[in-house]
Parts: sequence; structure tokens; C-alpha cells
Amino acid sequence: MSALAELKNYIGEMVELQAAAAIAHWDARTYMPERGVETRARVTGRLARLAFERLVSPKFGELLAQAEKELESASEAERAMVRMGKRDHERARAIPPDFYQKFVELCTKAESVWEKAKAEANFSLFKPYLSEIVDMVREMAGMIGYKEHPYDALLEEYEPGMTTRRAAEILGNLREKLVPFVKELQERGTPPPPIPEGKYRIASQKALCREALQAIGYDFSAGRLDDSAHPFTIGLGPGDTRVTNRYNEAEPFSALFGALHEGGHALYDQGVPPELYWMGLAGGASYGIHESQSRFWENQIGRSLAFWGFFKPKMSRRFRVFARMKPEEIFRMVNKVEPSLIRVEADEVTYNLHICLRFELEVGLIEGKLKVEELPERWNAAMKDYLGVMPPDDAKGVLQDVHWSGGSFGYFPSYALGNLYAAQFMEALRQDLPDLWSRVEAGDFRPILSWLREKIHRFGHMYFPEELCEKVTGAKLSPEPFLRYIREKYSTVYRI
Amino acid sequence: MSALAELKNYIGEMVELQAAAAIAHWDARTYMPERGVETRARVTGRLARLAFERLVSPKFGELLAQAEKELESASEAERAMVRMGKRDHERARAIPPDFYQKFVELCTKAESVWEKAKAEANFSLFKPYLSEIVDMVREMAGMIGYKEHPYDALLEEYEPGMTTRRAAEILGNLREKLVPFVKELQERGTPPPPIPEGKYRIASQKALCREALQAIGYDFSAGRLDDSAHPFTIGLGPGDTRVTNRYNEAEPFSALFGALHEGGHALYDQGVPPELYWMGLAGGASYGIHESQSRFWENQIGRSLAFWGFFKPKMSRRFRVFARMKPEEIFRMVNKVEPSLIRVEADEVTYNLHICLRFELEVGLIEGKLKVEELPERWNAAMKDYLGVMPPDDAKGVLQDVHWSGGSFGYFPSYALGNLYAAQFMEALRQDLPDLWSRVEAGDFRPILSWLREKIHRFGHMYFPEELCEKVTGAKLSPEPFLRYIREKYSTVYRI
Repeated sequence: MSALAELKNYIGEMVELQAAAAIAHWDARTYMPERGVETRARVTGRLARLAFERLVSPKFGELLAQAEKELESASEAERAMVRMGKRDHERARAIPPDFYQKFVELCTKAESVWEKAKAEANFSLFKPYLSEIVDMVREMAGMIGYKEHPYDALLEEYEPGMTTRRAAEILGNLREKLVPFVKELQERGTPPPPIPEGKYRIASQKALCREALQAIGYDFSAGRLDDSAHPFTIGLGPGDTRVTNRYNEAEPFSALFGALHEGGHALYDQGVPPELYWMGLAGGASYGIHESQSRFWENQIGRSLAFWGFFKPKMSRRFRVFARMKPEEIFRMVNKVEPSLIRVEADEVTYNLHICLRFELEVGLIEGKLKVEELPERWNAAMKDYLGVMPPDDAKGVLQDVHWSGGSFGYFPSYALGNLYAAQFMEALRQDLPDLWSRVEAGDFRPILSWLREKIHRFGHMYFPEELCEKVTGAKLSPEPFLRYIREKYSTVYRI
Repeated sequence: MSALAELKNYIGEMVELQAAAAIAHWDARTYMPERGVETRARVTGRLARLAFERLVSPKFGELLAQAEKELESASEAERAMVRMGKRDHERARAIPPDFYQKFVELCTKAESVWEKAKAEANFSLFKPYLSEIVDMVREMAGMIGYKEHPYDALLEEYEPGMTTRRAAEILGNLREKLVPFVKELQERGTPPPPIPEGKYRIASQKALCREALQAIGYDFSAGRLDDSAHPFTIGLGPGDTRVTNRYNEAEPFSALFGALHEGGHALYDQGVPPELYWMGLAGGASYGIHESQSRFWENQIGRSLAFWGFFKPKMSRRFRVFARMKPEEIFRMVNKVEPSLIRVEADEVTYNLHICLRFELEVGLIEGKLKVEELPERWNAAMKDYLGVMPPDDAKGVLQDVHWSGGSFGYFPSYALGNLYAAQFMEALRQDLPDLWSRVEAGDFRPILSWLREKIHRFGHMYFPEELCEKVTGAKLSPEPFLRYIREKYSTVYRI
């Protein structure tokens, strides 16, 4: 057997273990009975450990080294398999297992303390844990290594190739333009009409979500839509990509856009060729690129005027209150901009400002220039500066997100990068598909999905995000397409 | 670390892999999308292989040998862990991996051929595959080894300690008494009234199944009830034992008794102490003992007059047609005896005759005295002798069960043994709980479940079935309690 074939088998086994863990994870979030928690922790712990042992094993290193010698005659996918495998192997080996074990235990503890602290709006409870987490994360950054900035080592996990310097430039630029634009909308714009108050039957909302998913091309014969406390998408392997959603009886749009968001992730997953999956090359180019796909369908498409030309009749059939409205009215209604305290509830214009704030604080913490005890004050000051709102307490401020308690530093930027990639991809798509909006209005999403499949999905995790971005758009990532999109769209919505 | 502790860890890891496989299996039978089949096969194949590698590994043998030296100071559970571990290790090692692989492939092929053969009622399609399976099973019996009869080696898999001689004696005795009793019922008895024709809403049937499961003590916080093509019970580990069911709109009883049947398996599983689970000692004493628990709740309890005193009002609330009936009427209705062609649809009196037939044919095949080509004729002749009915074709005859196509020889007897154990346990329970029937009539099943927990469930897989039977009832397994039960009950039902 060639070294490449042997490596493929080896990676395939790791992927099979990850798929088994994914089944267990999906079940734990959807159907598992409450008393199954402890058993499930043992089972998923074992699967994670077996996969991790294989990832850090010297045998994997040897197989990678052997396979590298065969790269000349290898396919592009095989070369990517070796490159990504090596990257993951080396990153995982950089952290000593005992240190990592200690970190996981600390985070497990910290997450439950964070929950309590958030419930009681008491940052001081969480503070000692967060301090310890920040210390360990800084140490890990050193172990992983970096060229310029310790935060680079963390960004690399979620957005390979991204640097702190470049992220600061992109996000700083974005912030400078967005803050005055939000003010302008508020001061000079005509706000959209409010969503009609009412009781929106959940069964009807679910039916609408299914219709929307079906329309954009989500394959229900290779997936499912279930309920969960927090919506998510999970790939259990080729032919099985599932989404979940939650529903609010007081308004029908958050579930619908949630479905389109998860649907975007799911279309990406369903579009990765099976052979790449078993080579460890599913999962998308990066967190940011994955998020670009969810934001593309949720915002670029789902919150467009053309989409509501298509979807309004479906909506009216389930909820009569929309029957008397024009598509334009709904389009404006679902694009309300309002500076607010909570990231996950933010509109697409102010959303990125929540990310800029978190990015700047994270960088400060990892550099050591910002102390954990200064966080609440700095958080609130930035909220005032960027969004003009002031959290009444830390539960609605610095304690709102789970990420830090789980040790996930470097993750937040992907959300904003996803928005930027989505806008940049959309500009490229509009070049290639001039009748885009009339297609959307007709509910014909096939050419859009084909374009995404052809340009992005079929490569899975083969490329780094910057490489992919250049392949798709001919340019490096830039905030300009997003800013153009925002200015154009919201000038219409706010009639400026 | 002591050798026992090391062994416990080793077995714990195998059990964790089995639990992961169980989650994947449950999902495949309930919620998996159709296109997920291929991926799932890879994932479950990997989990099975990882568990099997550990089972046959020389390292396991060494750990068992080391642990055996520490048995003096070991607990009873630890001694059972070593005994059962050694048994499973040795049985698994007896078959060379290549041979086993070939057998699994043959069975996979044979199952799909069997499906086709059954659909077309064409035994000749299936014949060459069954011949090959029988040849390989006979070879495996030799590899595993036996004292007296090659079929002993197969029985041992499902009913450890059971021999062909003893099974022949028990089942032969049973057949001799049952055949004339069925005739007597038909000739001299007054048949029960038929189940009223109608459309029984499936949502109401499900609600009734939930009520029944809740009543007998199934813990829904540690389990679920879902739909599947064939009802089953599956343990995913402590705190998570799930049942599934199917529903027939034309009559409400098969789903209800299906739920009680699976509920009986599930109560057993929920009653095994968690620490035994992680030692590889869940799963029950044997297939026969497990079946005794399902048959106990389905037939001994669920088809009793007292149960219908309790359950009739619940039934009437959902289905008005039963409101005008007395409990006795329903009791008679659900205990109709009717010789029929299909095992899985048979009543509890004739059911065992279907098993006697299969047992005798299996023994003949494994001895080599019966040829595969003679099977259909021998099947039909035995059906005529034992049940007085004649299959119109092989689909309703020799092709009806999946077991042989899957290579499961030695499995069928467990069904009948389960019925016998159930009756024998019931006699012991009635000794200890004289007011049993008034409890049942009052819907107070707690003392029954406590008794089963105390006498059977809490031991999990610690004992061989014969040992357990003697512990519980003070006697070896005998067909007499079952025959007494049948005679008494059906004399009432048929007013003889």
C-alpha cells in the first residue's frame, strides 16, 4: 500500500470516530433523556480521546512524513490532506496532554460558574476562573508559537492564516465606518414599521422553515430539522447533515432567519464531496468561511427585497396578518437597525460592532495589557462608544457570551469575517449572475447554489480561507464590499 | 493499579464503544435520513471493529489472567466480570478473524437475498445462501467447541449453560402438552368476542402506550418512546434506555402489548446498577431471561383479568367503543387462541409451538441430518402436525423469519424459554406477594417491580440463567409452571 493510501486509512478512522461523536452530540442536544447526561459524557469523552490519541500519535507523524515524499504524483485533494493533517497534528502536539487535560477541566468548571454568575449578574464570581483561563490561554499561545503576536496563535485555530495585525486593520476600518453610519440611520432615517404583535403558531413556523429550507436547496433526504435550545448545524458524514431550530411564539422571523442561517451552514456541508469528508477535508475552509455561507443565506438572500417577493405569499398563507402587506414592507420590517446590548439579537449592521469590541478586549487580555478585573468597565465604555447603549448589569454586558468560559479565544472574529466574506462573495456572484434578483424573486435558487457549490463548497477544507477568497473573488478579504452592501441596502430601508 | 482495576478500565473502554454504537444504531432505526445509510455503516463498522479488536486482543487475555489471581479479595461483581469477560474473550478468539469476516459478508448478502426470496415466495433463491450459512455455522460450532452436541456451541451464545439435550427435553415436553390443549380449546371452548372493528387514532394509541409504560414504572426521565418499523428496546448506558413501537390503525392492542413487551425489557435494563454496566455486566443473564421480563409484563400482567380492571377506564377514555364492556370481556378478547402461520402474530399458547418447530429443524440442520432442500417440506409437515395449519407458500412458511439469513442459529429457543421463565418467576412472585392481583387491579405495580429488581434486575449479567433461575425460584427451569398457567388461564377464557 502506498504511504498516501495508508495515511488516508488512518485519517478515515479518525473521521469515523468524529462522526460517531457527532451522532452522540446531536442526540444529546435533541432527544437524549435528562438522566442520560453522565453516561453520555463518558461515551463522548472516550470517542474524543480515541480520536485525539490518533491525532497526536507519532505514527500519524510518520505517515505524514512518508506521504509527503509521494506528493508529486498526488492529487490536489491528497496534497491538501497532507497539508491540513500536518497542521492539525503539529498544533495538537504543541500542547502537552496533561496541560490540556487541566485546561479542559478548568473550562468545564468555569462554564458552570459562568452560568451562575450570569444568572446572578455577578462578575466577581466568574473573575477568578476567567483569570486562570486567560493565563492558561496565554501559555498555550506560547506553546503553539507565533510570528508576531500571541493572539495570532489563537486566531489560527478558527481562521488559518489570519493575523492579529490584519484582523485589527479590517475590523478597525469596519468600526470607523459603521459607527457614524448607524448614527446617520438613527438621526436621518425613517424607521421601518414594527413586526405585528400576535401569537404565531409554532407548527406553522416550522412548516415555513421547512419550506424555506426546501426552497434554497437543503436536501431533506440527507438531513433533518429538529428542535433544540440553541439552533445548530451538524454534519454526521456524507448524506447526513442536520439542522436544529427554536421558535418564539411572539414573532415568526427569528425562527425563519435561524433556519436560513443554519440552512446556509448545511448547504456548505451537503456540498462537500464525500471523498473529501473521509480525508478529513470537510468542515469548510475556516469558521469565517462557514459563517459566510450561513450569513449569505440569512442576510444577503433572506433579508433581501427580492426574497420577500418570493416568500411573502408563503408567509401570508400561514399568517394572515401579512396578507395585506407589500413585500417591501416586510423587507423593511426585517431590516430594522437598532443598537442593542445583546450580540445574538443584534441586526446585521450593529452586529459587527459587538465583534469589534470583543476582538479588542481579547487582544488586550492576551497581550497582558488588559486585566480581567478591568473587563466590565472597559466593556461598558466600548458599548457606549460604539453603540451608544449602556448595559444595566454584567449579565447584559460582559457576561453574556459563553465563549470565554469555554476557553474559546480567537473565535469571535470569525462572526464578523463571515459577514465580510458573504458580501464579497455576493459581489462576485452578481458579476457572474446578472439576473440574480429576478431569480430570487421567482424562488429559483438553483443557479445561486450551483455557483456556491462550484466556487466554494466542493473544495471543503482544502484551502486556507485567504486562498479560497482570492480564488472566488480575485481579491483578498476587504471590508469594502460589506460596507457598500450595507450603505446601499439601508439607505433604501431607511429612505435616506 | 491492581490488575482488577486495570481490567475494569479495559472493559469500561469496550463498553463505551458499545454504547457509542448503540446510539448510532438507535438513530439509524428512528431518525436517520435515508441518504445517511452508507456513512452510518462505516461508522458503526468502525466502532464494532474497535470493540472487537479489544475483545480478542492478547492484552485482554493477560489482564484477565492477572485479575484471576486477585479473585480471593474481589467482590462478587468483580468475580462475575472476570468470569464473563473470559467467556466472551475465549468465544470471540475461537473464530479466526478472516473466517468471521467472510461469514459476516455472506450474511449481509444473504439477508438481501432472503428479502427478495420472501417477497417472491421463492425458497430456491435463498437455498444456496442458506446452505452456505449452515455449512459455516457448523464449522463455527466446531471451532467454538462443545461437549455433546454441535448445537450446544450455538445455544451457548444466547442461553449460556443450556444444552441441546435439555432444550429438547423441555421443549418436547411442552409440545406434547400444548398440541392437545390447543385442540381441546378449539373443540370444546367458547371463543372470546372479536376486537371491535374501527379506526383507532394513532395519537391516542401512543398516549395509551405512554400511560401503560408510566404505570408499570418505566422511567421516562431515563428513556424515550419513539416510532420504528419494528419495535425494540436499546440500552445506551445508565440513565438512557429507549423503547420504540409501531401502530396499527385497525386495532389498538398490538401496539399496547408491544409497549408492555418492550417496557419489560426496558425495566430490566433500567434496573441494572450503573457500576455493573461499566463492567460489561448489563444486558441480562441471557436472551431467555431478558425475554422473560418482556413476556412477564406483556402476558402475565398485561393480558391478565386484573390488569384490565385497572386499564379498562384508561382505554375507554381514549376509545369509547370499550366503555360499554366489562374488563372480563376485554380480558377474553386479548387472549384469543388461534393456530396461525406467522410466529410474530401468534398468541401465547400457540407461540411456543412455532419455536418447537424451528428448534427441531435447526438441530437437524446443524447435526447434518436435515438437508436445506428438505426444509420447506419439513416445515409444512410440522405446521400441520403441531398447529393444524398449512402455509399456502414459503413466504408464509419457511421464509418468514430473518434469523437464519443473519446466521443466528440457536436464537429461537430463547423466545420459548422466556415464556417458561416468566411463568416460573410469576409462581415465585405470587408466593411472596399474595395480594398480587388486587395490587394489579389497583394499578399499583411497585411491589412487582421491586420484586423483579431485587430478585433479577440488580444482578444484570452476573449469573448464568440456570443459576439465576434457581436463586429466584429455588428450582431449575421447568415447563410445568407455564403449562399450569396456560391451563388455568385459558380454561377461564374459553369457559371450559
